Amino acid sequence: MPIINVAILEGRTLEQKRKLVEEVTKVVCDVLGCGEDAVTITIEELAKENLAKGGKLFLDR
Amino acid sequence: MPIINVAILEGRTLEQKRKLVEEVTKVVCDVLGCGEDAVTITIEELAKENLAKGGKLFLDR
Amino acid sequence: MPIINVAILEGRTLEQKRKLVEEVTKVVCDVLGCGEDAVTITIEELAKENLAKGGKLFLDR
Amino acid sequence: MPIINVAILEGRTLEQKRKLVEEVTKVVCDVLGCGEDAVTITIEELAKENLAKGGKLFLDR
Amino acid sequence: MPIINVAILEGRTLEQKRKLVEEVTKVVCDVLGCGEDAVTITIEELAKENLAKGGKLFLDR
Amino acid sequence: MPIINVAILEGRTLEQKRKLVEEVTKVVCDVLGCGEDAVTITIEELAKENLAKGGKLFLDR
Repeated sequence: MPIINVAILEGRTLEQKRKLVEEVTKVVCDVLGCGEDAVTITIEELAKENLAKGGKLFLDR
Repeated sequence: MPIINVAILEGRTLEQKRKLVEEVTKVVCDVLGCGEDAVTITIEELAKENLAKGGKLFLDR
Repeated sequence: MPIINVAILEGRTLEQKRKLVEEVTKVVCDVLGCGEDAVTITIEELAKENLAKGGKLFLDR
Repeated sequence: MPIINVAILEGRTLEQKRKLVEEVTKVVCDVLGCGEDAVTITIEELAKENLAKGGKLFLDR
Repeated sequence: MPIINVAILEGRTLEQKRKLVEEVTKVVCDVLGCGEDAVTITIEELAKENLAKGGKLFLDR
Repeated sequence: MPIINVAILEGRTLEQKRKLVEEVTKVVCDVLGCGEDAVTITIEELAKENLAKGGKLFLDR
């Protein structure tokens, strides 16, 4: 029953998201030995003003 | 001090959200024996292209 | 496909957890009109030294 | 490697977010003794209809 | 800057976790075109009494 | 109503956690102009085998 959340900067294409959930699901099931239907993935898109590293927003980096 | 996050597909009505937080708060307090003011709920709305099961986006299912 | 996370202070009984997931699932499905099998709940137990309100750990309140 | 998520009601200015990540990063590093580059912060903005306390949406309070 | 959280039932071996973070990082970078150092993964282990589906704890299924 | 989650490697002292929640609460309220009682903080402690960067567990770095 893996539940996976992927937080990324916004701006990815639909094709990238499609590929992302397909590939992540595959490797997770390979490693953990679970059926693909057991895997749930949520994608959390962050605006550049809502993600920071080193005390600086990505908007300002 | 329960903090509850409910992730759902976007598209629910305001009335459903109102009902959701009211009812969930009630049963949580019944079971745990806490005051309703102690319960915080966040609703996280997911677009169909940001939720996947079995390696497939809900957009494509 | 609701995914619900309930963060609570540790120390609840197994019976309370059983009741909690049963009741929360029921009301969520009533309000949103989804099948119960679609609901996933995770319980996150917090030690009193890992939860704070007003700048004070629950351990010290 | 602190990873910090700050959930707030939407409507904060860019200047507040800038200040927020700068100041939070500083105090976290002071207390934990880590380099500022090790700190990642995500800001999660909640609409008033997606946050509730005491069984009531902030929209209705 | 992908930040990935993988919630799984407890009981996986260290070798599975090692493999999991290695493989997930690889496919995420392939799809998104980011450097591997940009990927952070947290694993959240859930006891069977802290995960439920369909209103039933995994402990009771 | 800021809700803040701080994920850190396990092994911090109680004194560090006390200081952490006190100081973070203070700067968050300074910047956002909220009362300290409105701030909830959860600390999530990660074992070195449950946190990875660059495809490698912290246990192995």
